Amino acid sequence: MQQIDALWAEFSRPIVNADDYIASLRGRSMNVYFMGERVPEPADHPVIRPSINAMAETYRLASERPELGSVRTEIGGCQTNRFLHVPTAPDELVAKHEMQRELGRRTGTCFQRCVGLDAIGACHSVTFDIDAERGTDYHKRFIAFLKRAQNANVVIGGAMTDPKGDRSKAPHQQSDIDLFLHVVRRDDNGIYVSGAKMHQTGAVNSHWLIFMPTMRMTEADRDWSVVGAVKVDAPGLTYVVGRQTNDTRIVDGGPLDAGNAQFAGQEALIVFDNVFVPYEHVFMDGEWQYASTLVERFTTYHRSSYVCKTGLGDVLIGAAAEAASHNGVEGVSHIKDKLVEMTHLNETIYSSCMAAAYRSKPLASGAYLNDEMLSNVAKHNVTRFPFEIARLAQDIAGGLVVTMPSEKDLQNNEIGPLIRKFLQGRDGVDTIDRLRVLRLIENMTIGRNAVGYLTESLHGAGSPQAQRIQIARGMKIEDKKARARALAGSSAPKK
Amino acid sequence: MQQIDALWAEFSRPIVNADDYIASLRGRSMNVYFMGERVPEPADHPVIRPSINAMAETYRLASERPELGSVRTEIGGCQTNRFLHVPTAPDELVAKHEMQRELGRRTGTCFQRCVGLDAIGACHSVTFDIDAERGTDYHKRFIAFLKRAQNANVVIGGAMTDPKGDRSKAPHQQSDIDLFLHVVRRDDNGIYVSGAKMHQTGAVNSHWLIFMPTMRMTEADRDWSVVGAVKVDAPGLTYVVGRQTNDTRIVDGGPLDAGNAQFAGQEALIVFDNVFVPYEHVFMDGEWQYASTLVERFTTYHRSSYVCKTGLGDVLIGAAAEAASHNGVEGVSHIKDKLVEMTHLNETIYSSCMAAAYRSKPLASGAYLNDEMLSNVAKHNVTRFPFEIARLAQDIAGGLVVTMPSEKDLQNNEIGPLIRKFLQGRDGVDTIDRLRVLRLIENMTIGRNAVGYLTESLHGAGSPQAQRIQIARGMKIEDKKARARALAGSSAPKK
Amino acid sequence: MQQIDALWAEFSRPIVNADDYIASLRGRSMNVYFMGERVPEPADHPVIRPSINAMAETYRLASERPELGSVRTEIGGCQTNRFLHVPTAPDELVAKHEMQRELGRRTGTCFQRCVGLDAIGACHSVTFDIDAERGTDYHKRFIAFLKRAQNANVVIGGAMTDPKGDRSKAPHQQSDIDLFLHVVRRDDNGIYVSGAKMHQTGAVNSHWLIFMPTMRMTEADRDWSVVGAVKVDAPGLTYVVGRQTNDTRIVDGGPLDAGNAQFAGQEALIVFDNVFVPYEHVFMDGEWQYASTLVERFTTYHRSSYVCKTGLGDVLIGAAAEAASHNGVEGVSHIKDKLVEMTHLNETIYSSCMAAAYRSKPLASGAYLNDEMLSNVAKHNVTRFPFEIARLAQDIAGGLVVTMPSEKDLQNNEIGPLIRKFLQGRDGVDTIDRLRVLRLIENMTIGRNAVGYLTESLHGAGSPQAQRIQIARGMKIEDKKARARALAGSSAPKK
Amino acid sequence: MQQIDALWAEFSRPIVNADDYIASLRGRSMNVYFMGERVPEPADHPVIRPSINAMAETYRLASERPELGSVRTEIGGCQTNRFLHVPTAPDELVAKHEMQRELGRRTGTCFQRCVGLDAIGACHSVTFDIDAERGTDYHKRFIAFLKRAQNANVVIGGAMTDPKGDRSKAPHQQSDIDLFLHVVRRDDNGIYVSGAKMHQTGAVNSHWLIFMPTMRMTEADRDWSVVGAVKVDAPGLTYVVGRQTNDTRIVDGGPLDAGNAQFAGQEALIVFDNVFVPYEHVFMDGEWQYASTLVERFTTYHRSSYVCKTGLGDVLIGAAAEAASHNGVEGVSHIKDKLVEMTHLNETIYSSCMAAAYRSKPLASGAYLNDEMLSNVAKHNVTRFPFEIARLAQDIAGGLVVTMPSEKDLQNNEIGPLIRKFLQGRDGVDTIDRLRVLRLIENMTIGRNAVGYLTESLHGAGSPQAQRIQIARGMKIEDKKARARALAGSSAPKK
Repeated sequence: MQQIDALWAEFSRPIVNADDYIASLRGRSMNVYFMGERVPEPADHPVIRPSINAMAETYRLASERPELGSVRTEIGGCQTNRFLHVPTAPDELVAKHEMQRELGRRTGTCFQRCVGLDAIGACHSVTFDIDAERGTDYHKRFIAFLKRAQNANVVIGGAMTDPKGDRSKAPHQQSDIDLFLHVVRRDDNGIYVSGAKMHQTGAVNSHWLIFMPTMRMTEADRDWSVVGAVKVDAPGLTYVVGRQTNDTRIVDGGPLDAGNAQFAGQEALIVFDNVFVPYEHVFMDGEWQYASTLVERFTTYHRSSYVCKTGLGDVLIGAAAEAASHNGVEGVSHIKDKLVEMTHLNETIYSSCMAAAYRSKPLASGAYLNDEMLSNVAKHNVTRFPFEIARLAQDIAGGLVVTMPSEKDLQNNEIGPLIRKFLQGRDGVDTIDRLRVLRLIENMTIGRNAVGYLTESLHGAGSPQAQRIQIARGMKIEDKKARARALAGSSAPKK
Repeated sequence: MQQIDALWAEFSRPIVNADDYIASLRGRSMNVYFMGERVPEPADHPVIRPSINAMAETYRLASERPELGSVRTEIGGCQTNRFLHVPTAPDELVAKHEMQRELGRRTGTCFQRCVGLDAIGACHSVTFDIDAERGTDYHKRFIAFLKRAQNANVVIGGAMTDPKGDRSKAPHQQSDIDLFLHVVRRDDNGIYVSGAKMHQTGAVNSHWLIFMPTMRMTEADRDWSVVGAVKVDAPGLTYVVGRQTNDTRIVDGGPLDAGNAQFAGQEALIVFDNVFVPYEHVFMDGEWQYASTLVERFTTYHRSSYVCKTGLGDVLIGAAAEAASHNGVEGVSHIKDKLVEMTHLNETIYSSCMAAAYRSKPLASGAYLNDEMLSNVAKHNVTRFPFEIARLAQDIAGGLVVTMPSEKDLQNNEIGPLIRKFLQGRDGVDTIDRLRVLRLIENMTIGRNAVGYLTESLHGAGSPQAQRIQIARGMKIEDKKARARALAGSSAPKK
Repeated sequence: MQQIDALWAEFSRPIVNADDYIASLRGRSMNVYFMGERVPEPADHPVIRPSINAMAETYRLASERPELGSVRTEIGGCQTNRFLHVPTAPDELVAKHEMQRELGRRTGTCFQRCVGLDAIGACHSVTFDIDAERGTDYHKRFIAFLKRAQNANVVIGGAMTDPKGDRSKAPHQQSDIDLFLHVVRRDDNGIYVSGAKMHQTGAVNSHWLIFMPTMRMTEADRDWSVVGAVKVDAPGLTYVVGRQTNDTRIVDGGPLDAGNAQFAGQEALIVFDNVFVPYEHVFMDGEWQYASTLVERFTTYHRSSYVCKTGLGDVLIGAAAEAASHNGVEGVSHIKDKLVEMTHLNETIYSSCMAAAYRSKPLASGAYLNDEMLSNVAKHNVTRFPFEIARLAQDIAGGLVVTMPSEKDLQNNEIGPLIRKFLQGRDGVDTIDRLRVLRLIENMTIGRNAVGYLTESLHGAGSPQAQRIQIARGMKIEDKKARARALAGSSAPKK
Repeated sequence: MQQIDALWAEFSRPIVNADDYIASLRGRSMNVYFMGERVPEPADHPVIRPSINAMAETYRLASERPELGSVRTEIGGCQTNRFLHVPTAPDELVAKHEMQRELGRRTGTCFQRCVGLDAIGACHSVTFDIDAERGTDYHKRFIAFLKRAQNANVVIGGAMTDPKGDRSKAPHQQSDIDLFLHVVRRDDNGIYVSGAKMHQTGAVNSHWLIFMPTMRMTEADRDWSVVGAVKVDAPGLTYVVGRQTNDTRIVDGGPLDAGNAQFAGQEALIVFDNVFVPYEHVFMDGEWQYASTLVERFTTYHRSSYVCKTGLGDVLIGAAAEAASHNGVEGVSHIKDKLVEMTHLNETIYSSCMAAAYRSKPLASGAYLNDEMLSNVAKHNVTRFPFEIARLAQDIAGGLVVTMPSEKDLQNNEIGPLIRKFLQGRDGVDTIDRLRVLRLIENMTIGRNAVGYLTESLHGAGSPQAQRIQIARGMKIEDKKARARALAGSSAPKK
């Protein structure tokens, strides 16, 4: 326990607000790389910083609107950020989703804390179930861990997706056993794990990571059936931050060229090389039978979390309407009709996610889990509608969205005035404001935050086909067939 | 009041079950026409009877699953059918929608009671508001009426859609003033109304009708701003039942040809010719300012009521799966994928409707009203997805769905055996069962109940454009623009 | 040859016009059933007659616009109906498709001659190929047959789709060998075939039928690998005409209720019971290797033939515009936009079909065959767009399209005047005309001709998945991958 | 004429191949800006160079496949690049489109010569018409200009889109008259024009520019109704090259990060400040009545030119298939199905464009013009389908497409080996090759060439609404209504 206390020592003073949070990221000795170079202080890296700002908004919201961004938690016995709270009633999932949409609106990007939140939710109930059936004490450990985290008000990231290698083979069958994260050895104090996790959202901006298996395991995959928590600067961890579309715009262009200069998302490859995890932070070790349950509960939570994209949708609809206003065509019927269509699609996503929250059901641990069918349906809509919303936004914006000169051209004495002269919108519109809004549309549809609004909407929490498989499982086709027979007056065929 | 007692005399014994209900329809002297002939006893008319059966299922459900189909009501002080209950909490709207889906599953068609239910909901709060602001006593009258109806457990229909004539003109401007229902004269006991209501769902199968204005009124439209309740056999009422696709199949073909021999919907044109309404049953008379509120609340309720189509969707998905099973191709990947797509679309509709219920808000009268934006979004999805579900069902079913011989051919000694021989499906499948299921698919996609599943889904509770107008009104575009400006770093343009 | 002369004796005077054609159908002793009864004279059957009228339009067009509806043919040495002509240049396929669209416009339904035409095209080249490789004389026989047919100007139907039974088994493996049409025995003069063909378009309205295998055959399926021509009244043939949506409207309602009183399609089940085919009319007998080629060429022709649906689309777009005009809303922006969308989809279909004609290639026999990829693409669009066009037509038409009273109600003295009063459209529109146009929209979207416009568009010439399989075969994915590698700068992976 | 000879002096030796072309761009004194700095030699600018490479492919194709990329022209009396040829038969438009698709396949981007080609086509016939009706000699001038261009084998760009300012006002009504390009003054030798053209494709990479009005003009807009040709380095011209998504990847990342290191598109703002045009190069000056004809013919040509995007589609489909192969899932049914869908959509676009070429009609000048309706339909499909193809490509590619590390990370000794280890695909696949293909998919769906594949597909040759307006004009709705009436048996309403 002393060992654990030491790990938590730096968090003895809880993070109270956004500034605290950013300060808490400084001075850590993480092994972070970006574009071929080690980044000693990510908080000062111009390309990484916007992703930290987005994460910081989760603290700012808790300060500004505590009823939405924070919650009184029984486990911690304190008020804590809602991103650390295990939902224990449908209304708490509803509030979670409202918070997610609001943060989407505030940042126009991925604020990166949902994976960790949904990992917490899934671990809560699965550790409870394992203990109940196996007599282990994972749940107690997990609760102790979570209590500390809630009191320290830290960021917990979730790490699930393994590289997977040959997809037709189980973890233990891979030619390189590291292609799935696994236990390398165990000693009296804890376990040592190696492997990697891909596409890790906000990893560099977190304080702790919970790692989890990525799929159903078999008995031979015991060593790969492991859940635990590590500090992000634990020895043996290496991070490679991925490149995003237009990530360097902020550097080579400037804030105007960036479109959304303040906020962005973050995904990294995390490599685990013999990383030590004390037993107090191990929440599953070998119980392979529970891996699929953990994954299913996590994805059920997480697919509804994509309600955040409706917040981005709000921003993009607003940007398109503003661009139309700048062009003097906001009242034209086909423009209005496109804004309605965008809104209709955006609210359809919202309704699916919210219905999945309202229809959540309690698990044995007391945690509430979104309705599985509706959560899959919600995410599946997210894999489609943002693409159409983005297309319509570009339609309204006009071709200038991809042919605009750079902010630096505006600063040039020769051509700056020419650009101002020729790119003016309707009377009353500042040309630079017009360009700013178009750059925001570029940012969200074919720029840095299109990564989150479009591609991540496809693949986050599982690619489209993953939802289709779950929908197939839950669609109760035999019941439906019986209903059809009842009306057709037919009998069930013999097998 | 004696007058009123007399009107209610025949309902002194409450309707308890489906049989009571059907019995209650007999012996009335209604003026009903179908295909050019007066129908003395609609309950015995083979084409009309299936629509009565569908309505009767609302009673059967209340008997079989009282927690779903009925409710304890404060107004009536009794247990009554849920179709007579004013929802006073989100959970009651949720239960209402569950009931609607279940009845869709049981009947595969429109069971015709939602218009009346949603009229009750809308009148409850609007009469309350008028009284509060104008010192009238409409709400008291309405509550007294509803109390009797709940205790008698009768069917109340709602009548809204006027013929409208020249759509660019207000009611009082029409060349024929009857094109909107209006007060012709008033005497000491009540009012007399003339006009017509179109597309009236289940009119002939009801006991009472509440008539309401169909749109915003102006001061000059006072006499057209009228709400009241009449018995369906009140003097001066004439009904013309519309033709439906394949309505006569049950007569000229038989149950197999009908596809769904037991259940169907019903729409009628109702003509009002100087119909007397005692003041006790008048719930608005001249308060033109409230007409639009009434319409908006009604449509907000009613658009979510289209959740019933997900019950039909369940049946059609089941029928498609059964047809695939009969063909021995249920396991083929493209078939499974189509069933998943159908389910995804069906559950997307469901989630929109349910979210609109969970997010309902109380009105001054205490009634809860579905979320307006989400209810419009829900209905708008209903104007699209059933068409795609139907297309996919036909895709799975195969061309036989429209080239099948008649049941009468099966009965013919020459060709019956040939049909049995050649239309057989996989082993274990009875050929007649195969045809029954295909006829059900025909029924729902290009037959009698396609009227309800497809066309009514487009136009009921307002055509697509009506939802788009409401979505435009509710989409808070100025808020969205402000969000975009916040991220773009731009200022609002001068007007 | 005397035997053959005898078979052709009744066609010694060529059919010159539509009236001749209808006369030619009378007095035949065909074994036709509909709704359980033998139909002695189909031309006088009110339900069947509209399908004959539609077929007759192919003759009327040839009379009125000979350059479009007829062609000078080398084989016959005469001017003949274009439906009997083997296309020998791209322009002839173009003209064929223009003719098909025009007939779609004239009839609003399936005019039933395309199957026969496309069978002729496929048999021309396949018999040529067999002879060239096997030394048979099928092509000579076929040319002789076609020459007679062209000179007589008769209707040739094509019969392909077998019942198929258990789809996982080859013809010879079926428990009932009749589930695929096959040779039962051979004698000196010819062969005897048994089995059945399903969904046979216009079968009863034809003079001759060419029967063909429905899929790839194996060596053990020699007896099922048979092509030949029979007169439609040959002994042993039985026809069961399928029921269509609203087929009896013309009988129980009247022309207004029918929507399109004059024209309809026709599909029948044809049972072959030991039907004799003289060798002169046998065009394949046992050459199982060519069955798949025959099917592929037939479907390549036939999928482009679905250009006819753009003619139906023209009618439906026109009907929707007319309905909007009747309602006084033709100039409203969302109405105009929907008409544009319908047109866009309709012309997209057209362009795919036409491109497939222009890009046709010659076969060894000299016949030109549509481009295979584009023909599949064209048909695949036909499986989707008419459904959306129909939905938009209903959207514009309004709910009245499914709630209208019967023509018989209009004739009733009590209610007829009420209907006229209340269903009036804008000034200048005759109420009956308004209803007629709405009934036409019903007819094409949820009525008798929706069978052809929608369901047949899905399944005719192969269901959607059949096109996807062909597209997969033709998509040259290895070439495309090589192109991608060239730009990515990557190497092909090792297998 | 001496003056003109001088202008053409530098082109006395025709450009023969791609190397010649690139050499021809060097040493010009153009006034080009990019990201705030003047670019003295665009051919050496790493961000601009890929767009030159793409243009150069039009020469390379002519060398490698002369039958496709070049043509014998009567006007020039020489073999010249097909991009300089006025099509005088449908087959030449067909060949043009085949060339465009092939160049799309070779470059995966916009090769920038279609605007100029389509400007040539439009000017050919419009100058002919003006001369015929007004007795001017524009056509003779134009032919002389084109003859020189063809013999020199230069690149002609087209410049149409004016800034437009307040879209509710005509050119002469704008507060700043330069918002549409116009004649400032005239002298004995020629005219002087001022204004700007936006979104100018390949402007910097051209030798000559033809400028044209952008929309219908009125009589008061005479000075804005001007067409002429200028050398790209004429005094008074300034170019501002727009920023494209990920344009600097090639600089800050490297070829792998760029995705398609070799090829890209280019759009620039061109400012005209008193640019002199000798009368020999003036092709319209004041004939405002012909402005709309010119625009319509240009867009009719140009909308079909978007067939090039099917070449990009080929590459993207291939890249998706290759990525699936790298993941070992190419044979999975949902992957195959998505590749089929992508192909289906791509070939639908192709068929629309090709049909528009085959159905071209001759104009008075002898030039052939694509079918207007089908060309609009084709382009309208281009505004939709590439977005869905791109979505499906990302679906197949997986999330790695936006989370990949940089090429520089691969070069890093610490993390390079880790990335190689963990991002490996199936056996036999080089990890770097896997990343290259994913970067290509990024490039085309959310990177530099997504600008051309997606946004330009929306807005080039007119935004979606422009096509809808043209489709509305051409849809012959009165004919269609008449067809509907003929089948409904109704009469035309009185107006």
